[in-house]
Amino acid sequence: MGKRKVVQKEVLTEEKTSVKEKGKALKVAPEPRMKAHKKKGPAENAESLAKKQREISVSEFFAKNRHLLGFDNPKKALLTAVKEAIDNSLDACEESEILPEITVKLVRLSAKVVEPTPEEEAALAKGGKPKKKNPTPTEKYCLTVIDNGPGIVPAQIPKIFAKLLYGSKFHRLKMSRGQQGIGIAAAGMYGQMTTGKPMRVYSKLPKNPKATFVELQIDTKTNKPDVLQEKEVAWTEKTSSGTIVEITLEGRYQRGRQSIDEFVLLNTLSNPHASFKFVDPDGEIFDYPRKIEELPPLPSEIKPHPYGVELGRFHQMVADTSQKTMRQFLTKEFSRVSDKVVDEIFKEAGVKDFSLASAQSDKVTSVHEAIKKVPIMNPPTDCIVPIGEELLTETLRNQTKAEFYTAITRPPSVYRGNPFVVECALAFGGELRGDEAMTVFRFANRVPLQFQPAACATLRVITKADWKNYGLNQQKNSLPVGPVAVVIHVASVWVPFTSESKEAIADYPEIKQEIRLAVLECARRLSVHVSRGRRADEAERKANYIDTYIPFIGEALQAMLTLSDKERDKVVATLRDTLEKGKLDG
Amino acid sequence: MGKRKVVQKEVLTEEKTSVKEKGKALKVAPEPRMKAHKKKGPAENAESLAKKQREISVSEFFAKNRHLLGFDNPKKALLTAVKEAIDNSLDACEESEILPEITVKLVRLSAKVVEPTPEEEAALAKGGKPKKKNPTPTEKYCLTVIDNGPGIVPAQIPKIFAKLLYGSKFHRLKMSRGQQGIGIAAAGMYGQMTTGKPMRVYSKLPKNPKATFVELQIDTKTNKPDVLQEKEVAWTEKTSSGTIVEITLEGRYQRGRQSIDEFVLLNTLSNPHASFKFVDPDGEIFDYPRKIEELPPLPSEIKPHPYGVELGRFHQMVADTSQKTMRQFLTKEFSRVSDKVVDEIFKEAGVKDFSLASAQSDKVTSVHEAIKKVPIMNPPTDCIVPIGEELLTETLRNQTKAEFYTAITRPPSVYRGNPFVVECALAFGGELRGDEAMTVFRFANRVPLQFQPAACATLRVITKADWKNYGLNQQKNSLPVGPVAVVIHVASVWVPFTSESKEAIADYPEIKQEIRLAVLECARRLSVHVSRGRRADEAERKANYIDTYIPFIGEALQAMLTLSDKERDKVVATLRDTLEKGKLDG
Repeated sequence: MGKRKVVQKEVLTEEKTSVKEKGKALKVAPEPRMKAHKKKGPAENAESLAKKQREISVSEFFAKNRHLLGFDNPKKALLTAVKEAIDNSLDACEESEILPEITVKLVRLSAKVVEPTPEEEAALAKGGKPKKKNPTPTEKYCLTVIDNGPGIVPAQIPKIFAKLLYGSKFHRLKMSRGQQGIGIAAAGMYGQMTTGKPMRVYSKLPKNPKATFVELQIDTKTNKPDVLQEKEVAWTEKTSSGTIVEITLEGRYQRGRQSIDEFVLLNTLSNPHASFKFVDPDGEIFDYPRKIEELPPLPSEIKPHPYGVELGRFHQMVADTSQKTMRQFLTKEFSRVSDKVVDEIFKEAGVKDFSLASAQSDKVTSVHEAIKKVPIMNPPTDCIVPIGEELLTETLRNQTKAEFYTAITRPPSVYRGNPFVVECALAFGGELRGDEAMTVFRFANRVPLQFQPAACATLRVITKADWKNYGLNQQKNSLPVGPVAVVIHVASVWVPFTSESKEAIADYPEIKQEIRLAVLECARRLSVHVSRGRRADEAERKANYIDTYIPFIGEALQAMLTLSDKERDKVVATLRDTLEKGKLDG
Repeated sequence: MGKRKVVQKEVLTEEKTSVKEKGKALKVAPEPRMKAHKKKGPAENAESLAKKQREISVSEFFAKNRHLLGFDNPKKALLTAVKEAIDNSLDACEESEILPEITVKLVRLSAKVVEPTPEEEAALAKGGKPKKKNPTPTEKYCLTVIDNGPGIVPAQIPKIFAKLLYGSKFHRLKMSRGQQGIGIAAAGMYGQMTTGKPMRVYSKLPKNPKATFVELQIDTKTNKPDVLQEKEVAWTEKTSSGTIVEITLEGRYQRGRQSIDEFVLLNTLSNPHASFKFVDPDGEIFDYPRKIEELPPLPSEIKPHPYGVELGRFHQMVADTSQKTMRQFLTKEFSRVSDKVVDEIFKEAGVKDFSLASAQSDKVTSVHEAIKKVPIMNPPTDCIVPIGEELLTETLRNQTKAEFYTAITRPPSVYRGNPFVVECALAFGGELRGDEAMTVFRFANRVPLQFQPAACATLRVITKADWKNYGLNQQKNSLPVGPVAVVIHVASVWVPFTSESKEAIADYPEIKQEIRLAVLECARRLSVHVSRGRRADEAERKANYIDTYIPFIGEALQAMLTLSDKERDKVVATLRDTLEKGKLDG
């Protein structure tokens, strides 16, 4: 990157050399070349370009970019659909203070597709792609997710399930699994795109004897729901209320890493108050009864913190508020703004309280600028409900047989005005393998994260930390190698993800700093444990020396000093005592 | 992950142990604990939840999730704004067959912010966060990007610059830098959110003597443009047409890795037909005249390939088409569907040609299903214009002083019906450092990718490859260490990115496979070069032995056999010849 100014002559000379060099390389290995692309499309001008401008509906956008939502490939698509449905069910149950009972059923509707063996794939790769090749056949599944939540008011069903960017969680500052208003509708859209089948939703309210059944699809051109059928039906579940979602979709079911099995299992760990049942396509039933009969505390909703509201949104809020004056607006619509804080803000801005109706934009801006100069308490943190140190340790115990466990829940912190909490648990030794990279379990708002570890703030922190200090092997910027497993949980009123599929936590410095502090504290405790272990080992060795050599020393002394057996035994006992004492002190 | 069924009793026992264990750990290092969260929010029911459901505008969504668009932090936000403007300018110039001339000016509008030193940061981190802390002050910039493109029809300016998901590139299958209709409007929205200042656009059409000036902002609640001012002004540039975009935004300008300087420089490499000028906030001018006076061939637009159109979109296309019959529809609106192919599709589906007006949905579906069973040629590939082996090598030469260069442009391939081409160039030895990880330059549709390497398909392929086979050091799943630099370019009518910020290429198996083949071919050539170098070294060594020892052997023989000097010289010459011959053969 040294060169700044490219001198034309120099470049041309180099280009010649380049062509020669390339020629040489080609002799070594002749390769298929691109055909020269001389054919040109028509040139455009402002007018012709204008005719091509069009609005893009958010559904069209995500249908084309469906990998952004986690629908990259059939295997992941199936998992993402399950995940979105479970997230919604858990949120709805908890918000209504119902102990969640969730059933996931997966039925294969087509023949199982046999994948090419690695040998076949390699042969295919070597030969290059054939000019004509049929697409790989796909598998079709029917996914059913049943919950015992509060049900959904019939009028809301179409928008919730067949409109992207619609929901109750986006505009609130409250910790929940869903936050975007995309997930479940995207799963339905994916099903519709790949199989042409509409989504089916059954919803039963406690007050109604019957359930509502709706068959619906999404009009991707307008991002609007299209109701094909709506009727009252009998509710076949034993619960007094609930929702059943059915999606027919292309997918692929596989067990093991990054599977639905793993997702459900990890969910049982972060949600011990929920019971899960998973019926897999082969009919095998995975049954996880709840472990705790008590709901976690319900997180409360908070108002935005003034530091987290940027100028543009501040103006928007002023325009939208029903408050009459700036003072009322600041104290009523924000967290942590007392009358005293308003006094300081006004003083800093050089203004007095003013009516919002006739307020000049500049005056509002000056208030916003003053906010940054006034110290304001961090937002309240009862909006965050961490998993807790006990439960995190429990999670690790379920996954590992180690000799040492520790966990920490950090105090709440704030990024862009949003409170968040980081928790970390660590397991060491025992049956964990010493020759493998550290295992990391990631959770965000109690949801297991199974994909994109390399893009996640958690892994970035762990790989950047120096684990050699804590007695582990580590290559630069890699996961340490050793018998260690770690759980990290980030909980927030708004977890920033690197994409809409919510697979990895984005790189906010405040969040990374908290992850770092949590991980390093666990690592520090580990090193205390390890060095204590080392001391114990040494003491053990010392004790062995004592046991081994003292009798001989005793006999030698007896011979040298002509001691009686009794005297010898006394000397040996004294020696042993003295040395044992040294062992305990040292 | 072994356990499948969690037995309640077992878990409860383990829990007790866990609490004990945790207590122990806490004695080792007492830590601030979370306050117990007993305060609960109100419980919801279906009706109360329904009242909270709301539509989310796409602008609101991306304003809150602005890290998805590359506006994570002030430094990156500034770069992303520059990137979006340059991408648009290059696309517009090329589509209109104008050799691009682009000027980027960055003016700092506020005092420079001094960052805390690493020591200060560490002290802050150790002490934990203070309860009250003012936000870090920010820097403000005015960014101006000037091009000599075709200009923009005045009526289109508001929507192009102040509406997300609007553009000419999303609905076409054509290789271009922009594709989503988000970028430049998002940059304007970010400026507006952070500084309250509207975006300013000047546009001059060739036929008009004056330029249009528009001041506009985005209404984030509705995702609609809000025109504050529009008037005719004099065009101050020397060009006959062009566009000037001005955004006032928060940011931070820093040189070095992942900087604007780097972005502009890398662009000069992938776009040698464009001239760039960058005026940095300190007034320093980086001037890069174009290196080639010829535009790359204009990529042509293609129709979708039948294999890439999923059932849902197929139905949508049937509903939208102006064609009368299925046969017309298939041959006119798709690539590579001849009448003969239609015959085969109809035969497979068991149908005859039918009118679309009255077509049953099932019949359309059966045609779609039949498509997959009929072999159809890959889509045409003149829609892809690769950078080419010469230019790629040139790119590496500009960045490195190596001893060996090679490059390959792979034949076109297809993913989800979209044609794409992968190119790779490799440099080895010379001044490249042998003790550092391989340097990788990534490009997508000629745009340099500077962020998220770990999430990118390119890096995933490189780190998974076994570089030890090619004589490089490598830790498992890491970049190889050695004096190697690599350029990878992925060009497609639709590059799948892992997020809207277009920083990393998504994990499509077909794309990874092509990257693998390109990289491995370069690596293979490298190993041929290296082993040839090794043979040359050995020959050299052998030659040295001959030169060193033969005279002595000659003298020894002379003494033993009492040879004349002439005889001795003859024997030496014969010996040398024989051995030299052996050297060449061996």
